[in-house]
Amino acid sequence: MSIKRILFFTGRILIVVSLLMLLPVIVALIYGEYETIVPFLVPALGALAAGLCFKLFKPSGRYKASEGFTITALSWLLISVLGCLPFVISGQIPRFIDAFFETVSGFTTTGASIIGKATIAAEFDGLVENMSHSLLFWRSFTHWIGGMGVLAFGIALFPTLKSKHSDEGSEAHILRAESPGPTYGKLVSKLRFNARILYGIYLGLTILEILFLAFGGMPLFDSIVHSFGTAGTGGFSIYHDGIMHYGNAYYEMVIAVFMVMFGINFNVYFFMLMRKFSAAFKSEEVKWYLGIVATATGVIMANTMINGVYKNFGDAFRYSFFQTASIMTTTGYATADFVGIPWPALSQVVLVLLMFIGACAGSTGGGLKVSRLIILVKTAIREVKRTVKPKSVYIVRCDGEPVDHRVVINVCGYFVVFVLLTAVSTLIVSLDGFSTTTSFTAVTACFNNIGPGLGDVGPLGSYSDFSVLSKIVLSVDMLLGRLEIFPILIAFAPSAWRNR
Amino acid sequence: MSIKRILFFTGRILIVVSLLMLLPVIVALIYGEYETIVPFLVPALGALAAGLCFKLFKPSGRYKASEGFTITALSWLLISVLGCLPFVISGQIPRFIDAFFETVSGFTTTGASIIGKATIAAEFDGLVENMSHSLLFWRSFTHWIGGMGVLAFGIALFPTLKSKHSDEGSEAHILRAESPGPTYGKLVSKLRFNARILYGIYLGLTILEILFLAFGGMPLFDSIVHSFGTAGTGGFSIYHDGIMHYGNAYYEMVIAVFMVMFGINFNVYFFMLMRKFSAAFKSEEVKWYLGIVATATGVIMANTMINGVYKNFGDAFRYSFFQTASIMTTTGYATADFVGIPWPALSQVVLVLLMFIGACAGSTGGGLKVSRLIILVKTAIREVKRTVKPKSVYIVRCDGEPVDHRVVINVCGYFVVFVLLTAVSTLIVSLDGFSTTTSFTAVTACFNNIGPGLGDVGPLGSYSDFSVLSKIVLSVDMLLGRLEIFPILIAFAPSAWRNR
Repeated sequence: MSIKRILFFTGRILIVVSLLMLLPVIVALIYGEYETIVPFLVPALGALAAGLCFKLFKPSGRYKASEGFTITALSWLLISVLGCLPFVISGQIPRFIDAFFETVSGFTTTGASIIGKATIAAEFDGLVENMSHSLLFWRSFTHWIGGMGVLAFGIALFPTLKSKHSDEGSEAHILRAESPGPTYGKLVSKLRFNARILYGIYLGLTILEILFLAFGGMPLFDSIVHSFGTAGTGGFSIYHDGIMHYGNAYYEMVIAVFMVMFGINFNVYFFMLMRKFSAAFKSEEVKWYLGIVATATGVIMANTMINGVYKNFGDAFRYSFFQTASIMTTTGYATADFVGIPWPALSQVVLVLLMFIGACAGSTGGGLKVSRLIILVKTAIREVKRTVKPKSVYIVRCDGEPVDHRVVINVCGYFVVFVLLTAVSTLIVSLDGFSTTTSFTAVTACFNNIGPGLGDVGPLGSYSDFSVLSKIVLSVDMLLGRLEIFPILIAFAPSAWRNR
Repeated sequence: MSIKRILFFTGRILIVVSLLMLLPVIVALIYGEYETIVPFLVPALGALAAGLCFKLFKPSGRYKASEGFTITALSWLLISVLGCLPFVISGQIPRFIDAFFETVSGFTTTGASIIGKATIAAEFDGLVENMSHSLLFWRSFTHWIGGMGVLAFGIALFPTLKSKHSDEGSEAHILRAESPGPTYGKLVSKLRFNARILYGIYLGLTILEILFLAFGGMPLFDSIVHSFGTAGTGGFSIYHDGIMHYGNAYYEMVIAVFMVMFGINFNVYFFMLMRKFSAAFKSEEVKWYLGIVATATGVIMANTMINGVYKNFGDAFRYSFFQTASIMTTTGYATADFVGIPWPALSQVVLVLLMFIGACAGSTGGGLKVSRLIILVKTAIREVKRTVKPKSVYIVRCDGEPVDHRVVINVCGYFVVFVLLTAVSTLIVSLDGFSTTTSFTAVTACFNNIGPGLGDVGPLGSYSDFSVLSKIVLSVDMLLGRLEIFPILIAFAPSAWRNR
């Protein structure tokens, strides 16, 4: 590994984020919240200075895969520390660990919040809505930045590596380390070009949602913040009761539809822009994804109506579809307090299962990803078949193409690590003495970047009462989940550092 | 597939079980429970007749792998129906589905019981201790039969297939379909000989436990019944509060130690009999297994003592070790009501994790099996390594030997099927409206052949209140778990039947 190359690229990320921290300053000026300007300017200027220093290291040679992972892990850690400073300096979230958790939750698009009476400045009475606009804007903006990936943003903005023929393949290692899902598809080839197109689509869809919400009557600031939360599949709101606050079916439907859209593999939009409609609609992953959303919505509708939770078809659809879309895409907005006014057991189990599946690869959503689920299910079916006829050859296919057996083993390996890490994290978090359901779903919700779980961390609950140890573990889980485990593990693995 | 070969071998199993049903008749005679003699004789004679008819089909050729699976599935289904008839005919468990659940639970060594006020004859007041000795003996004896495998018993007793050079390899398919764990090790080579040795070890250890318990003061009948429950890692008792009934530390320690012993791969005892001690003690699986038992015991001891559940070291060890051994080996006896007088959250999470791991391959225990866990963990580690250096070759090794990559994929595939089936079963069972914890741990406890779970199916709970649908699903789960999923799925897969 080359420390120079790593610092050089990390410096670029610091500069990008320091510039992005100037946006909430504008919000502070608009709302006259002058006391929050310094808390943003100090870390922004510090990061800018550090970033410029890092860029003095002139890198040479191509980026290696292991460097991509290290850059990713290091950058995400640095921006999380950087991003939490405004909360701490302004005193609105006084404790560092709380602000760090909240910022990691933001960048990783988890949306799990520690905000509560014990964690924010006493005069706010534990309510997020009493905090400053600039800080709330920043909190939700981290979702938007983290959704598509901060490194991708860095690559899209700054074309700095000179060598024409090598830099794109070289930077692909970085983008791949950050990009969710087992495949980055065919978009990798023309890297910077495509990073820009993807960010363009992302920005376009976000603006579209803001317009839909604002024209429907939602205040502009609320529209922007909730669109950030939707676009990044994050889930932070500016009300303690989130989207429930409005009780407005139109808002809910707009947000639900956009959640589903942001959970789709962005390749689909890319192909649609290129007018390759047949390519756009043949994706097996998207079919499964939409099929699961439809099935889960149907099952929850039937189950809640039969159990008398909702009296009419319209209400049942409204709440079932929103909650399904929110959990499946790992956004985490809630319009029904399915814990407080309990949904029947079956519906709760459906939600827990959706938590694990997650959205499509190449979307802003978290979780295991539908494409991995497809490979796992097909591998399982193949193994059953192979037991009957051990000598036959069965090939796992996706989108009609055979899947390399190393990809199959890799996906299986990922799944095992995923389950093991969930188990270990649950063990540690359960030391706090919350119920098994709370501990388990808190870990699941953080690891899969969802936000709310069941029990004490349900839609109206908070992560404020967890111990410092649990908050650290859950923060690490959020990062592991967002960066798909391997980059973080690898950055700290001795073998990656041995032969630099 | 050859229907003849299938019926011929299944007939043999029916004869074996019909003969075994004469043992409870002896118990009935001893205790003067003459009204339970006919309920045993009728199905026994019926099965004997059917078995003799089936044996008229003279089989030809070698058994195929798919036939082995079908014979296994069919035999287990038939003996479960057969074995439940005494309960129904005697009227002590009047409803067929309840008796069937109880018998499946017995043969699969699960130990989950439906016995409660709603399910047994009214005069018994819902207490298992009021039922007849002969039926209780039979109920626990099914554990003993199922533990080592009823087909293995059939092979050990009746050497019927003539052709000297081919029959052992041929019957290996049948034994392999029934034998727990990914490997049957080196014992397959001399099949019938070894099936007898294994049954000899099994019988010897069982008698040893009976002696230890009886000489410690436990009534002989109780000693026999509880030794059956321990040997098969089943968990049925003759008291509604199981081993807790005695409150005797000596009994608990004897049972705990024997539970751990029956959870060890029987190859170890075989090697010890052969005086190959180095081979016996080098097994990686056994080391992991004992290591996990020790670690879990230690963690629960520390956790319960710190939380003030147990005041002294002796009590903490006594209850932690027993519960750990019981859940890890999937036996399911309990001496602490860790649900009613709740253990701290961490200890409960440890127990849930142990539920999934299970005992060693080649033991009488259920669950995923320690050997699979080892392969999964090593595969996961390898995948992390491979991400750093994609071109390097990393080989998964067990006991120093490289594991074939098809075995690795098979174990991963098994794990995925395992998780998927747990999810689907939990969905169906949750229709009954019990808490998520109850539904989930009920499925887990049945699927891994443990018995008690948490919530309403905890150590003092019962499965009596589940719906008929759930009882069917849970029965299927117990069979799937005991036969390691594939045989059952394959027996009903169209592809297995297509080209007979």
